[in-house]
Amino acid sequence: MITKIEGLIAAPFAPMLPDGTVNLDLIPDYYSFLQKNGVVGAFINGSTGEGVSLSQKEKQQITEAWTRQNKQHKALKVINLVGGTSYQECIESAQASEEAGVDAIAILAPFYFKPTTGGQLAEFCAQISEAVPNLPVYFYHIPVLTGCQVSMFDFIQAADGMIPNLAGIKYTHEDFMDFLTCLNFKDGKYDMLWGRDENLLSALVLGARGGVGSTFNYAAPLYHELIRAYDEGNLLEARKLQQQSIDMIRLLGKYGGIATGKAYMRYVGLDCGAFRLPVKNMTNEAYQQFETDVRALEMEPFFSKIQD
Amino acid sequence: MITKIEGLIAAPFAPMLPDGTVNLDLIPDYYSFLQKNGVVGAFINGSTGEGVSLSQKEKQQITEAWTRQNKQHKALKVINLVGGTSYQECIESAQASEEAGVDAIAILAPFYFKPTTGGQLAEFCAQISEAVPNLPVYFYHIPVLTGCQVSMFDFIQAADGMIPNLAGIKYTHEDFMDFLTCLNFKDGKYDMLWGRDENLLSALVLGARGGVGSTFNYAAPLYHELIRAYDEGNLLEARKLQQQSIDMIRLLGKYGGIATGKAYMRYVGLDCGAFRLPVKNMTNEAYQQFETDVRALEMEPFFSKIQD
Amino acid sequence: MITKIEGLIAAPFAPMLPDGTVNLDLIPDYYSFLQKNGVVGAFINGSTGEGVSLSQKEKQQITEAWTRQNKQHKALKVINLVGGTSYQECIESAQASEEAGVDAIAILAPFYFKPTTGGQLAEFCAQISEAVPNLPVYFYHIPVLTGCQVSMFDFIQAADGMIPNLAGIKYTHEDFMDFLTCLNFKDGKYDMLWGRDENLLSALVLGARGGVGSTFNYAAPLYHELIRAYDEGNLLEARKLQQQSIDMIRLLGKYGGIATGKAYMRYVGLDCGAFRLPVKNMTNEAYQQFETDVRALEMEPFFSKIQD
Amino acid sequence: MITKIEGLIAAPFAPMLPDGTVNLDLIPDYYSFLQKNGVVGAFINGSTGEGVSLSQKEKQQITEAWTRQNKQHKALKVINLVGGTSYQECIESAQASEEAGVDAIAILAPFYFKPTTGGQLAEFCAQISEAVPNLPVYFYHIPVLTGCQVSMFDFIQAADGMIPNLAGIKYTHEDFMDFLTCLNFKDGKYDMLWGRDENLLSALVLGARGGVGSTFNYAAPLYHELIRAYDEGNLLEARKLQQQSIDMIRLLGKYGGIATGKAYMRYVGLDCGAFRLPVKNMTNEAYQQFETDVRALEMEPFFSKIQD
Repeated sequence: MITKIEGLIAAPFAPMLPDGTVNLDLIPDYYSFLQKNGVVGAFINGSTGEGVSLSQKEKQQITEAWTRQNKQHKALKVINLVGGTSYQECIESAQASEEAGVDAIAILAPFYFKPTTGGQLAEFCAQISEAVPNLPVYFYHIPVLTGCQVSMFDFIQAADGMIPNLAGIKYTHEDFMDFLTCLNFKDGKYDMLWGRDENLLSALVLGARGGVGSTFNYAAPLYHELIRAYDEGNLLEARKLQQQSIDMIRLLGKYGGIATGKAYMRYVGLDCGAFRLPVKNMTNEAYQQFETDVRALEMEPFFSKIQD
Repeated sequence: MITKIEGLIAAPFAPMLPDGTVNLDLIPDYYSFLQKNGVVGAFINGSTGEGVSLSQKEKQQITEAWTRQNKQHKALKVINLVGGTSYQECIESAQASEEAGVDAIAILAPFYFKPTTGGQLAEFCAQISEAVPNLPVYFYHIPVLTGCQVSMFDFIQAADGMIPNLAGIKYTHEDFMDFLTCLNFKDGKYDMLWGRDENLLSALVLGARGGVGSTFNYAAPLYHELIRAYDEGNLLEARKLQQQSIDMIRLLGKYGGIATGKAYMRYVGLDCGAFRLPVKNMTNEAYQQFETDVRALEMEPFFSKIQD
Repeated sequence: MITKIEGLIAAPFAPMLPDGTVNLDLIPDYYSFLQKNGVVGAFINGSTGEGVSLSQKEKQQITEAWTRQNKQHKALKVINLVGGTSYQECIESAQASEEAGVDAIAILAPFYFKPTTGGQLAEFCAQISEAVPNLPVYFYHIPVLTGCQVSMFDFIQAADGMIPNLAGIKYTHEDFMDFLTCLNFKDGKYDMLWGRDENLLSALVLGARGGVGSTFNYAAPLYHELIRAYDEGNLLEARKLQQQSIDMIRLLGKYGGIATGKAYMRYVGLDCGAFRLPVKNMTNEAYQQFETDVRALEMEPFFSKIQD
Repeated sequence: MITKIEGLIAAPFAPMLPDGTVNLDLIPDYYSFLQKNGVVGAFINGSTGEGVSLSQKEKQQITEAWTRQNKQHKALKVINLVGGTSYQECIESAQASEEAGVDAIAILAPFYFKPTTGGQLAEFCAQISEAVPNLPVYFYHIPVLTGCQVSMFDFIQAADGMIPNLAGIKYTHEDFMDFLTCLNFKDGKYDMLWGRDENLLSALVLGARGGVGSTFNYAAPLYHELIRAYDEGNLLEARKLQQQSIDMIRLLGKYGGIATGKAYMRYVGLDCGAFRLPVKNMTNEAYQQFETDVRALEMEPFFSKIQD
């Protein structure tokens, strides 16, 4: 029986030092920050977490830093993305994740040679999942980055039965038809986690109860309010809050993409440093302009601040 | 002040005779059928209506056949898509539409040379809109077919002020972030009509009240129920109905796309003939299999039947 | 037996007046200009000729203006693109083209509903070709604009036999493997005209002898030299000339695309006016900068000048 | 001064055992086979070599197996692709490659977060290149797999000066305009290796003298003949040979892609086993059909056979 996750799961950034190495020492504070903000999980080494830009060893160090906190505080579900293009290395990561004590792993579609059918994708995931039969496994669907266009309904039909420890899907794509069909698959057998913060409301109405996102790192209060308003049937309020999330996210487009997330972290007081190449970072000048734009959003109460 | 349309607007198929010419004589029956099914409008000569495959003259004949019914029965909003790649011809169609007595026109992004900014797209639409200043104008956003990737938020910011008779957008795309932002633009100034039947529920929760779709031609009862359930706060029921809509729409994929819509029309008893090339039609054999699949959906009460 | 075209076929621009209407009066001069420059044909109403932005009537007027010259001077092969998304209108254009006395017509893949197999594409073209059985027909392959990704080898296998008056293909794409296979199809049965001026040398080496292009409007001498150098086995010279063609074409990218072609026409002294929306035209200021850039290319002898 | 490579560089397959582990013991035979066939280099751990599907450790073992042969026989240039999405791991691979004694390394564009400008791409490559300043570095351009659409002219302009040990580009794309411009950059400063075997002739005419390809593993004689014919000015012969290469490569499409290459290897007698997931392998039944198709090509003398 699959345990479904309800609530917000943050996808933490990889904290970096000025010299470009991983800042493991920040993770205890990061953990407390998420815990304080009512986040229920941490999806580490994902897109936001720059997993693909880290070495296997660095990813493992990050994993251990998060599970170490968890052993003490038991406050978050820690899900580690072991994805990559080599299933051999994914297996190594999966096994090391299990030893480190993660709650679940996640697998990404291979993104160089790309599967074109649900069966091919499921076989790839099965190779890795078999190596950690006691660990729940999520598939992380993000076709805009992987280029793998297999629908999740095709995947789940092939994977069901083939991967006994498949727990569900982190769904980061706008195909709500596919998403609802997966939600309803075998009477809701699988845990479908929504991965597009800017469209959370449109997923809630379909029955989603858990979300994984990067903006939950710094604006969890906004989404807690959004979910509360939705649950109370106050849709006017829920829409207004969704629009505020959109206005906030639109600044990522304006300032060049994913690295803007770390600018938001700096803004709320938990400086995670820069993104690694090839991601382009904001200049200091751009950051000043960004800060002005953030203040103009007039949504201070909806940010999590480190010093609050 | 823009009058917003609430409810279901069908996008009628172009009725064809066996010899491949337009079957204008079917339109009175088609009109009554939609009227009986509680549809509030007809969006003609669109994608479903094969506007791009018809000659200017044929499109005008179809327009006049629909407005002729409307003059008598006054039951539907008739919106005519005058889109094409030549604004010269769009203007001619727009003016003829006005004479014929349509309620509004719609414009498509030019789909050979493709605008890349909201400004360019707005200028193209303005050329046509100016020629019919007293007619409401909708923009028809369907990037999967036009290849024009301009966001509607970019378009509406450029068009607002530039196109005084802009009424709104028929939004046939999955970018709910963009859609909600347009819904909220200037306190809801514009009429945002949702164009993806399979995702209607996810648009309703954002505040959409009108939809334009091809499946409203033959399955309007299903969507009336879906909207009723949503309005009553019965989301479990609404999701179940949305899933039925998805199961029905999935057969379009299985049987080769848009031409499957005319197979559904044959199924409900209003034979609209074949699609024109380059659209591929179902063979008679495939139709038999299709009929079996439709019956297996077990959703008879949700179809509009001509003989009911 | 198909008559193959050897040499350069220009794709003329649609001459426009300042008020945005077609400048038919310029066509006699345009004809003489091409004739003087050793061009062997005119491919009218194509991409360069803005066929998709003109009305049916305007396209026909342009066609008649070109064939009128041809009746007198008999210097150019006139090929008229009758392409569009409605085969009904394509047939009308094809028949009117025949009456006007064109040497051949060309057909474009429908670009809204897009064929996905060679068979579907061939059937669409056959509908039109049958209406003018005595006229040679070229297929115009330009997937970057039509979005139709069918390979020409798939098309030609399906069309051979089905379209008796198929003469060949204007090939505007970079798939040299597909191009060579079509060149060799049935011992070179079809006339394969190369449509990427910037890569002409790479097509010549495969056996291409005819090209259709927009830069042959204003820089025919450059390509005559290139072909001569190639034919003499002087490849160092041929490469140098191809690089000059590339440097010239690169300015199209710098100045915003297809409209830059009309800036080159203004530069050589045959002002064809502006492009129609949605194509964006160069400002006068940009034109000044463009002129400076063109002079910096130091390739004056390779331009055709009206006053020479 | 950059030493340019003239001739055919094979991109070896990763030899695998039936249990899915790397078959290092086959590499001495593989080396001799290439040597015997007149190939001048081996581009290892690339697309054909499944580098992305191997672990860092496995790639290093393969590298050492190849350089070990080279130390003894000194017959091939060994270029190792150290590409991946983490520059940290690329640096480790680059340094280990140098220790192993490779002749050059190659770098791939990161293919998850994708650079969008020449500058970003050059900065990423510079990080790695700096770690092995005495080793020549090739950039491996294959946008169809990486999704990185930066033109090589943009890259080379940014990289020139920034990466002192940049030797050139392995160009696996059909943009001949971009390719020629890079060939001519700074009077031919960089070594431009052509990577599309099916279009080699169109690159030779532009001045290419070296090629890297997968079909040189098993059909080197065909390309030696093609180059000889071209060099002698016998273009009719060269085109015929290019068409034979195309017919051979077309079977890759028919039998499902890259894994067909290993079927060709089995055919010529050097069984390299199967591809790793997610690449789909041919069934034994399909192989029988494939063998029939290969014989029907009637090009036996153009294959390299192990037992010859």
